[in-house]
Amino acid sequence: MSMTLVGVMGPGEGATENDAQLAYELGSLIAGQGWVLLTGGRRTGVMDAASWGAKDAQGLVVGVLPGTDDGDMSAAVDIAIITGMNEARNNINVLSCRILFFVGMSAGTASELALALKSRRQVILVHAREDVVRVFTDIGPVPLVSVDDAASALAAAIRIIQLPEDPLGPG
Amino acid sequence: MSMTLVGVMGPGEGATENDAQLAYELGSLIAGQGWVLLTGGRRTGVMDAASWGAKDAQGLVVGVLPGTDDGDMSAAVDIAIITGMNEARNNINVLSCRILFFVGMSAGTASELALALKSRRQVILVHAREDVVRVFTDIGPVPLVSVDDAASALAAAIRIIQLPEDPLGPG
Amino acid sequence: MSMTLVGVMGPGEGATENDAQLAYELGSLIAGQGWVLLTGGRRTGVMDAASWGAKDAQGLVVGVLPGTDDGDMSAAVDIAIITGMNEARNNINVLSCRILFFVGMSAGTASELALALKSRRQVILVHAREDVVRVFTDIGPVPLVSVDDAASALAAAIRIIQLPEDPLGPG
Amino acid sequence: MSMTLVGVMGPGEGATENDAQLAYELGSLIAGQGWVLLTGGRRTGVMDAASWGAKDAQGLVVGVLPGTDDGDMSAAVDIAIITGMNEARNNINVLSCRILFFVGMSAGTASELALALKSRRQVILVHAREDVVRVFTDIGPVPLVSVDDAASALAAAIRIIQLPEDPLGPG
Repeated sequence: MSMTLVGVMGPGEGATENDAQLAYELGSLIAGQGWVLLTGGRRTGVMDAASWGAKDAQGLVVGVLPGTDDGDMSAAVDIAIITGMNEARNNINVLSCRILFFVGMSAGTASELALALKSRRQVILVHAREDVVRVFTDIGPVPLVSVDDAASALAAAIRIIQLPEDPLGPG
Repeated sequence: MSMTLVGVMGPGEGATENDAQLAYELGSLIAGQGWVLLTGGRRTGVMDAASWGAKDAQGLVVGVLPGTDDGDMSAAVDIAIITGMNEARNNINVLSCRILFFVGMSAGTASELALALKSRRQVILVHAREDVVRVFTDIGPVPLVSVDDAASALAAAIRIIQLPEDPLGPG
Repeated sequence: MSMTLVGVMGPGEGATENDAQLAYELGSLIAGQGWVLLTGGRRTGVMDAASWGAKDAQGLVVGVLPGTDDGDMSAAVDIAIITGMNEARNNINVLSCRILFFVGMSAGTASELALALKSRRQVILVHAREDVVRVFTDIGPVPLVSVDDAASALAAAIRIIQLPEDPLGPG
Repeated sequence: MSMTLVGVMGPGEGATENDAQLAYELGSLIAGQGWVLLTGGRRTGVMDAASWGAKDAQGLVVGVLPGTDDGDMSAAVDIAIITGMNEARNNINVLSCRILFFVGMSAGTASELALALKSRRQVILVHAREDVVRVFTDIGPVPLVSVDDAASALAAAIRIIQLPEDPLGPG
């Protein structure tokens, strides 16, 4: 059986200090479960912070990069997938993960959240704004989970992983 | 100079009657300006309605299809771009259009809206819910236009086309 | 029914004078049949020459560009599809065409030839080297047509278009 | 520093017994060097055999899958990258690898070989037909290495890895 990939998605350049700290915690918790962290792979914001969180906890980090080389890769990435597809790589991030955590918000992040819902992936918003949660809940077509902190996010993820796979499949 | 491509994005199977009527009007107005309509190309919902609107007004219709053949193509599509990339094709829709109209909402539509903002494309939401407008306005990084009906949408589009190109370029 | 898209694929910067002349003739002949020309869209080599051939014959030209904007587009392109996917766009070129002509050879061109065979598209090599024809014929899985000049290429394309569609479908 | 990804590319359903055995050996040798194996991820032919070779040697296996789920994945894959992009994923395989071994030939394999040359990746053909080697050597734009067996392939790869990076970069 292949390893369980879990994503942490969030802003790059526009991430807040708080986003970065939350992402670091999530990366660490993911590694602690023996799951593989997947991010957008760049050396900035939520991607970079989550990657360091997982690496510092001896986890494995997959970075799915938008460019045609690894020039802007986080130094905490172990396995670099170089797509050369710019934002179209967002759909790969989404399809490859069993669960996706979202931390903070940006246009790129919103595209991944929407693509995750479209492909019926399991989505956990962490410390999201209430109106964001409400709008994306209405967009559907699958329910999303919204929690306040990293520990609750992990608990929700563990519950999902222990469930039998969604009979609807990947959408 | 190449033709001006203008997109109409919105739900497929989940489109309402009202979404479809609005999309048809927009397709017709786009064709009336001599612009080329671009949609996701499928025979359903907003894509199909906009395509018929443009075709009935003697316009040209480009459909950017997700599958590996044209099996589910709208019969109003003139030029079928077959991507074989499923939802990753959404980024092509966005990048190829000078202006994108959004009608109705779904996960796929939200992904295109977010990708359009990410790539700094000109976005016009037509008859959108207020909270959707507010959330995506906050997501940025570029302003979006929100209007109530097809005629106002066209007027906004004409104003944008007459402006000099965004000096920031495509993002 | 949508329009018939016919591709002309070949080297960009590495095209010979002869490649360019042949591509120009093919673009012109494609337009003369009322077919739409599809190329890789850039302002160089076979793409550019074929596009001008079609444009000068009052045809319609679709350019499927690798970058995230139209900065290096041939001025003869009417409809620019901006993929932002670099070489991954080669598979879109291939999937979207009913028939693909190949003129000259380069690594990018070879990738499109191989992808066309993989997806069981109709391939016509024009003035190709004998060993290239032999190797790609062996690679299969579908037969390719090899001809010496533009007129023979057109005749072969017309025969193919008049056939019922390949019952194997698009692969 | 991220791990070194090395690809083994070759036919799926059309692989010969000999292709599969060679691929298994290469997977094993790659794992023995502490490199990560990357393949197209499917449960067939060269992809599957190479994956088992690496897994049986306690290596790590990345599978870059064409579909939207892991339904046809090799059971030896550790990390499944689900692209949903069909053959367009071939360019991701190529871009992500420091070195690519090619075993056997098919249309999909030829597309990866051509894309690898286009992006100036290091290519090693193992036990390839002479005319294939000659044609792709002429296609360029970078030299390829051709060897007869797995041991020579490994030796060539080690020499390449020890070189400073190609100053031309990834193309």
